[in-house]
Amino acid sequence: MSPFTGSASRTGAEEWRHLRLALDAGVATVTLARPGRLNALTFGAYADLRDLISELARDGSVRALVLGGEGAGFCSGGDVDEIIGATLAMDTRQLLDFNRMTGQVVQALRSCPFPVIAAVHGAAAGAGAVLALAADFRVADPTARFVFLFTKVGLSGGDMGAAYLLPRVVGLGHATRLLMLGEPVRADEAERIGLISRLTDTGGAPAAARALARRLADGPALAHAQTKALLTAELDMPLSAAVELDAATQALLMNGADYAEFHAAFTAKRPPEWQGR
Amino acid sequence: MSPFTGSASRTGAEEWRHLRLALDAGVATVTLARPGRLNALTFGAYADLRDLISELARDGSVRALVLGGEGAGFCSGGDVDEIIGATLAMDTRQLLDFNRMTGQVVQALRSCPFPVIAAVHGAAAGAGAVLALAADFRVADPTARFVFLFTKVGLSGGDMGAAYLLPRVVGLGHATRLLMLGEPVRADEAERIGLISRLTDTGGAPAAARALARRLADGPALAHAQTKALLTAELDMPLSAAVELDAATQALLMNGADYAEFHAAFTAKRPPEWQGR
Amino acid sequence: MSPFTGSASRTGAEEWRHLRLALDAGVATVTLARPGRLNALTFGAYADLRDLISELARDGSVRALVLGGEGAGFCSGGDVDEIIGATLAMDTRQLLDFNRMTGQVVQALRSCPFPVIAAVHGAAAGAGAVLALAADFRVADPTARFVFLFTKVGLSGGDMGAAYLLPRVVGLGHATRLLMLGEPVRADEAERIGLISRLTDTGGAPAAARALARRLADGPALAHAQTKALLTAELDMPLSAAVELDAATQALLMNGADYAEFHAAFTAKRPPEWQGR
Repeated sequence: MSPFTGSASRTGAEEWRHLRLALDAGVATVTLARPGRLNALTFGAYADLRDLISELARDGSVRALVLGGEGAGFCSGGDVDEIIGATLAMDTRQLLDFNRMTGQVVQALRSCPFPVIAAVHGAAAGAGAVLALAADFRVADPTARFVFLFTKVGLSGGDMGAAYLLPRVVGLGHATRLLMLGEPVRADEAERIGLISRLTDTGGAPAAARALARRLADGPALAHAQTKALLTAELDMPLSAAVELDAATQALLMNGADYAEFHAAFTAKRPPEWQGR
Repeated sequence: MSPFTGSASRTGAEEWRHLRLALDAGVATVTLARPGRLNALTFGAYADLRDLISELARDGSVRALVLGGEGAGFCSGGDVDEIIGATLAMDTRQLLDFNRMTGQVVQALRSCPFPVIAAVHGAAAGAGAVLALAADFRVADPTARFVFLFTKVGLSGGDMGAAYLLPRVVGLGHATRLLMLGEPVRADEAERIGLISRLTDTGGAPAAARALARRLADGPALAHAQTKALLTAELDMPLSAAVELDAATQALLMNGADYAEFHAAFTAKRPPEWQGR
Repeated sequence: MSPFTGSASRTGAEEWRHLRLALDAGVATVTLARPGRLNALTFGAYADLRDLISELARDGSVRALVLGGEGAGFCSGGDVDEIIGATLAMDTRQLLDFNRMTGQVVQALRSCPFPVIAAVHGAAAGAGAVLALAADFRVADPTARFVFLFTKVGLSGGDMGAAYLLPRVVGLGHATRLLMLGEPVRADEAERIGLISRLTDTGGAPAAARALARRLADGPALAHAQTKALLTAELDMPLSAAVELDAATQALLMNGADYAEFHAAFTAKRPPEWQGR
């Protein structure tokens, strides 16, 4: 057990009521499992995503996370009845708390020390589109449809960091069009503008996402985690600071087991046996 | 009338000598109208753009703006005779004042509280290319040709914020090529690299831009305005601050009329009647 | 000779032991010349690149730089034997010094006052891919293959500023994929995602790079240099500061010889004779 384990108990996999969690040798699979409502998010689902990703980040054994949706689509976003209806009755404090909670999910996805792979099929709408956007990889099949539909319900297209992230993924022109108009982006356009990381055959996204997660978890996982951390941090840093951060990070990893293992394996002409540290 | 109206009188539409202004139920249409010179900009035209957009931003009734050019093209940039010739005789103070003025036009376009749609046909050259770049949408037809020709006259490709904006729209590689070499970008390449928001049939840009402006103005206009404000601000913010700004903005808009209207209309299975607030 | 010449002597072209330098009327050509090892970089090669670019930056006579590789490819990155092997025996101080040195090469490429053109054929791998990425132009032929293979050796994909630069060139989604997975990007994909500035016929990269450098050096070279400086600086600046920097820069260049020459030539209907100042 990690020396950095505190008193708080971990939530048992079966205790998560608003999503499904499976853990398998370093790969966590989180499934939005409300297929009758296209995995529409409730307050509880947002809270579970926030808490679960934070727990996994502390845990130390997770090396890659797959986020997918059961049924006909990835995630249709905040539930119209259970969220929009409820927020109409909220006071200012509650509205701020709710919107901060959704933003915390995105911050958790961007700051957790392992790559996140969204497996997208069908609709990734509203908050569902932002969850996919906040992932490191979007593995999607031809049925995938991203819709940043916030303005369609009278809200800002900048929700949960979307107005920060989307311009950095597809450029400001495309991002303005997608966030302002709330129009669907189908898989071929999403691939063309850089929103999809890997396009699979129809129905192939979950398996491809699992395979990618397995490969990342079985590989030099600390190197992958640091790559993610630097990509995230360096969006907000000047070049000079980024170069210094890179230097310190590489010096650190050059003391690590995997770097030595690469050299030993290369010299012995055998494949490396990664330890992920 | 808005409680935030000061003493300064508004300039009458007919008083703008260097451009044409039409106002129609929330849509402002600004036309560069010097077709004999391909709408080349004069000192007066820059000043009018700066002042007009600022006035419209204060006004409160404008919900979308279309910027277009009369005749054979959108805008050929600063007039060689009236601007380049004149600046050669200027002292340092005047040169700085002129270049600050042109930058203020771009800042006004990026900070005004309504989306700006450039309707581009033919040449968008020099300052004309930057005006289009600073718009939120570039609706263009196949005759459109963007030319950031500043180095061709011995100046920096970074003019009026172009070296800030273009990398954020098309990426640093394309931006370097376009600003350093001053080569024309034709419509098909412009669409491919994300510089065009919507490509129309030949001659179709003005109508498509008007239709988009109408749709934006008649929709949840405050949501659109906030989307623009967040896209602009979050280019210059770290993720954590962006997520907090998004949360505060959504909490604000969840108290707004349009969000409640969306829910009422959705529940009643009728289209929403947006009020833009 | 420039009044800003200090006491330090310039290194003679024949003294550079780890690369080849040629100077021709404002165009510097730097060739990685270890073709038997696919131009794999040694400690000495990194140090020479760092020192040479800094010397050329001070020199004042260089107006464009071509960086290419002799033999079958551009550069295969850090030498497995001479660098990975050696770093395994280093202490913390030495590891930091080494990684800072490699970062200084990238900072030198981004801050030198002339455009840098990478002429890429075959492999641009590891540090070789980052050298190309840090150039202003990547002129490449169809054999070009960019591989950010850092995680394949157990290191972070953020090396020498790659996690800062690549998202700003190709967007965060593509950058995450390339840096995390270390997969090769062939010329057609590299062109599609904006990583290649100009695609040539097979074998045509060196000549096209030389022609581009010649054109840049013979043109308004100070305008080119300032365009590069602004593109670099404005990635790290808010819009308002960028607009002010643009205004000051243009005011400065409007006092320059080339701006006046453009106007004189235009008026006389003759081609400008650029002086580069």
